[in-house]
Amino acid sequence: MSTVSFEAPRGMRDFYPEDMAWRNRIFDAWRRSARRFGFQPYDACVVESLELLQRKSGEEVSEQIYAFEDKSGRKLALRPEMTPTLARMVAARQSRLPFPIKWFTVAQCFRYERMTRGRKREHYQLNMDIIGSEDVLCEAEILGAAVDAMRSMGMPDGAWRIHVSSRALLGELLAASGIPERHHPAVFIALDKRGKIDDSEIADLLRGEGLDEAAIGKTFALLAVNSLDEAAAMVAADSKAMADLRGLFDLAHAMGYGDLLMFDIAVIRGLSYYTGIVFEAFDLQRRFRAIFGGGRYDSLLALVGGQPTPAVGMGFGDVVVGEVLREILGDACPEPRAGYIIGYMTPEQRSAAVTLAAWLRADGETVDLSLVPQKPKHFFAKAGNSSALKAVYIGPDDVASGTAQAKNLQTREFESLSLAQPVQP
Amino acid sequence: MSTVSFEAPRGMRDFYPEDMAWRNRIFDAWRRSARRFGFQPYDACVVESLELLQRKSGEEVSEQIYAFEDKSGRKLALRPEMTPTLARMVAARQSRLPFPIKWFTVAQCFRYERMTRGRKREHYQLNMDIIGSEDVLCEAEILGAAVDAMRSMGMPDGAWRIHVSSRALLGELLAASGIPERHHPAVFIALDKRGKIDDSEIADLLRGEGLDEAAIGKTFALLAVNSLDEAAAMVAADSKAMADLRGLFDLAHAMGYGDLLMFDIAVIRGLSYYTGIVFEAFDLQRRFRAIFGGGRYDSLLALVGGQPTPAVGMGFGDVVVGEVLREILGDACPEPRAGYIIGYMTPEQRSAAVTLAAWLRADGETVDLSLVPQKPKHFFAKAGNSSALKAVYIGPDDVASGTAQAKNLQTREFESLSLAQPVQP
Repeated sequence: MSTVSFEAPRGMRDFYPEDMAWRNRIFDAWRRSARRFGFQPYDACVVESLELLQRKSGEEVSEQIYAFEDKSGRKLALRPEMTPTLARMVAARQSRLPFPIKWFTVAQCFRYERMTRGRKREHYQLNMDIIGSEDVLCEAEILGAAVDAMRSMGMPDGAWRIHVSSRALLGELLAASGIPERHHPAVFIALDKRGKIDDSEIADLLRGEGLDEAAIGKTFALLAVNSLDEAAAMVAADSKAMADLRGLFDLAHAMGYGDLLMFDIAVIRGLSYYTGIVFEAFDLQRRFRAIFGGGRYDSLLALVGGQPTPAVGMGFGDVVVGEVLREILGDACPEPRAGYIIGYMTPEQRSAAVTLAAWLRADGETVDLSLVPQKPKHFFAKAGNSSALKAVYIGPDDVASGTAQAKNLQTREFESLSLAQPVQP
Repeated sequence: MSTVSFEAPRGMRDFYPEDMAWRNRIFDAWRRSARRFGFQPYDACVVESLELLQRKSGEEVSEQIYAFEDKSGRKLALRPEMTPTLARMVAARQSRLPFPIKWFTVAQCFRYERMTRGRKREHYQLNMDIIGSEDVLCEAEILGAAVDAMRSMGMPDGAWRIHVSSRALLGELLAASGIPERHHPAVFIALDKRGKIDDSEIADLLRGEGLDEAAIGKTFALLAVNSLDEAAAMVAADSKAMADLRGLFDLAHAMGYGDLLMFDIAVIRGLSYYTGIVFEAFDLQRRFRAIFGGGRYDSLLALVGGQPTPAVGMGFGDVVVGEVLREILGDACPEPRAGYIIGYMTPEQRSAAVTLAAWLRADGETVDLSLVPQKPKHFFAKAGNSSALKAVYIGPDDVASGTAQAKNLQTREFESLSLAQPVQP
C-alpha cells in the first residue's frame, strides 16, 4: 500500500511527548494561576458560525478565517479568537449570570497566514475576562494572574515588562492637542501600525483621514510622552483615564508586581473595540512579538446584540511565551523525577512485578511497568532516561526472598519493598 | 446593531462553568489514570489532511467527515478519530522511537451525523495506545488505566462491565465450523451490526457473501457460546487466541479488576483493522451506548505506509460516560470546597483586602477577591454559593484592629488573620 505524508498539514503542530513537557508547563501554569485568582473555567467548540466571527473581527482577520460549509450548507469557521464566542455565551445568559463574572479558558484558535519564519496557523490562547465591572481592580486582577503564570513557568521578572497605556487617555491627549474626537478611531488604527510600516506611511494615513500637517505633527509629538506625570500635565486634573492608570499602578504595587509595569503611550492594540486601559507584555529586548495583550472593551456585548456591559480581557498565546522561555531556560524542559519504573528479568518474575505495580498504583503512585523481560543493564539504562524517581528490578532471588529493592535514581539509595505485602510508600 | 444567534452551531457544545465541573472531573480522571499507568502525553492539531483520514477510515466514517479546503486549495478535514494521526506520527519516527511506547491524548473529534436524541457532532476522546509489543500485558495495562479512570470519576464497580472477546478466537471458531477464512472479514462486519439491524438482514448479508444456509446457521450458533471454557472446547488446545484471552483475565485479577471483565463473543467492533482481542464497556443495564472500546490492531502502521508493528489501543469518549455518571450520581457535580473568598464593606477597606489576597495567593492559595464593596449579608450569601472553603469579610473595625476573621464555611469555625502580617495558612 502506498505511503501518505507523515507530516502534519502546513502550519499545524504535532506534539510528541517531549513537546508536551513544554506545553504542559505553560498550560498548567495558565490554569493554576487563573484559578488562584478566582477565575472560573468555560469553553466552547472551536467551530463557530461564520456570521458571528465576521461581525466582530476586524477586516484583516476576516480574510484569514478558515471558513467552510457543513453538509447542510451551514456556514461555519474555525475561530480566529475566543472573544466573539465569549460575547455570545454571556449575551445568551445576560439576565441570569451573577455579574461581575471572572471567566477563563485555554482555547485553540486558527488564522490562515502566509507562512513566514515558522509562524503557525493555529495556536492556543489563555483568555481571561472580567465582565460587569468598571473598576480598575479588574485590570489589576487580570494582570496579577498573568504575572503569576509567567513566574510559575520560570520566567524571571528581569526578562520582561508589561507596557500599559489607555485609549481613553490618548483620546484626552489628542483632544487637548486640538484633534477632534471623530478622528480618534482612525488615529488609533494608524498609530498601532508603528514599527510595522514607516512613519511617513502613517502620516499618509492620517492625511487621508483629513488631518492637516500641524495635527499630524502634534499626533507624533504625543508619542514622545514617556511618563504618567508628563501626560498628567497635559490633561484635566480630574481626568478619569489618568486616575484609572494611576490606580492600576498602585494596585500592581500592592499586589507585588508593580515593578513589572511601565507606562508606554505607544501601546494601542489593533482591534477597534478597546475603550480604556490597554496593555501588552514584551521581553526586555523586544526581540519577540507580544507575549500577551488585552485591555478594557466596554462595548463588547453590544457588538453581538447584548446589553452594554463593561469588560476587561486578555489573550496569552502559547507560541511566543514558549519561544521566550526556551531562549532564557534552554530547550530542555526537565520535569522533576516522580513515581516508579518496574522491570523484571524473565517471564517468571512478571506476576510479582504486576502485583507490585497494582499495589503502588492503588496508592496513587505512577508506575511504568515494563512490558517485556529485560537484562538489568538495559532496564537501568531505560530507567535513567525515564522521569521515574524509583527503579525496581525484580529477579529470581527477589521473588524467592519476597523482597525487592527500589533504587532512588536521585539519591542512589535503596529501600526494600515487600513483594508479599509492600511497605506503604 | 442587529443581533446574531447566541446559540452554538448545531451539534457543537458550549461549556459554562457548571458544565466545566463535569468535564474536568472526566478529563482530570483520564489524565491522572493514564499517567499513573505510565502513558506519556502526545497531541496533534484537530485539522488533518483529508487523504490520511480517508485512507484509514471505514466508508461510513468517510461520509461523515467535515472536509474543507484552505485558501491555497489544500484538502483538509476535522479528524473523526485520532488513530490515523497517531499512525502518521509514529510512522514518521519509526526508526528512533523507543518501542514499545505507551502514549495517551485527550483529543476532540468531529463527525457529521443527522441530529437524533441529543447526539453531538463533536466530542472529546481519551486515546491510549501501546505500540510495539504483542504481549497481552498491553491489553491489561490499557484496561487497568481505563478502570482506574472510571473509579476515579466515581463510577461504582457494580454499575458497569467490560465485555471482552477476540477476533482471532472468533476466526478460529468460524474455521472450526467450516467457514473459510476468506469470508471472515465480511462475517465480522455483518455480526457487528447485530442489535442495529434484524438477524434476518444479517443473514441476507452473509448470503450475499456466499455463505450457505448451514454456514449461516453455524455462524449464529457461535453467538450462543457464552463462556471461555465453552469456546476452549471448540478450538485447538494450543490456541494462541484462547491463551491470550485467559492471560488477560488472569492479569485483570492480579491487577484488581478481574470482576469487571466478562467474556462476550458478540463484541466485534465496527472498524476493519482489529486483529486480536477486542473490548467494549457498557453500563450494566445496557441503556447507553458503549462507554469505551478498543482492541488489538497489529496492521495499523502498515495502513499509512509504515513498518508492520503490533499495537493495542482504546477510545473513551466524554459524552456517554457523562450520561452514565449523571444517571448514577445526579446532575450536580459538587467540588470540594477550597481556598478563600474575600469581601469588604466600603472602598476604604479595599486596600487591606487586596494586600491580604496577594499574601494568600503568594502562598499558593486560591482567592476570589470581591471587585466591589458589599454588605455582609450579600457577601456571605455569595460565599455560600461559591466553592470557597474560607470567607473573610473586612469591615472598618477589622482594619482598625489589624485582624480579620476567616470563617470556615464547612465547620462554621473562625480563625484570625493578621492584616499586617497574616498567619501562614
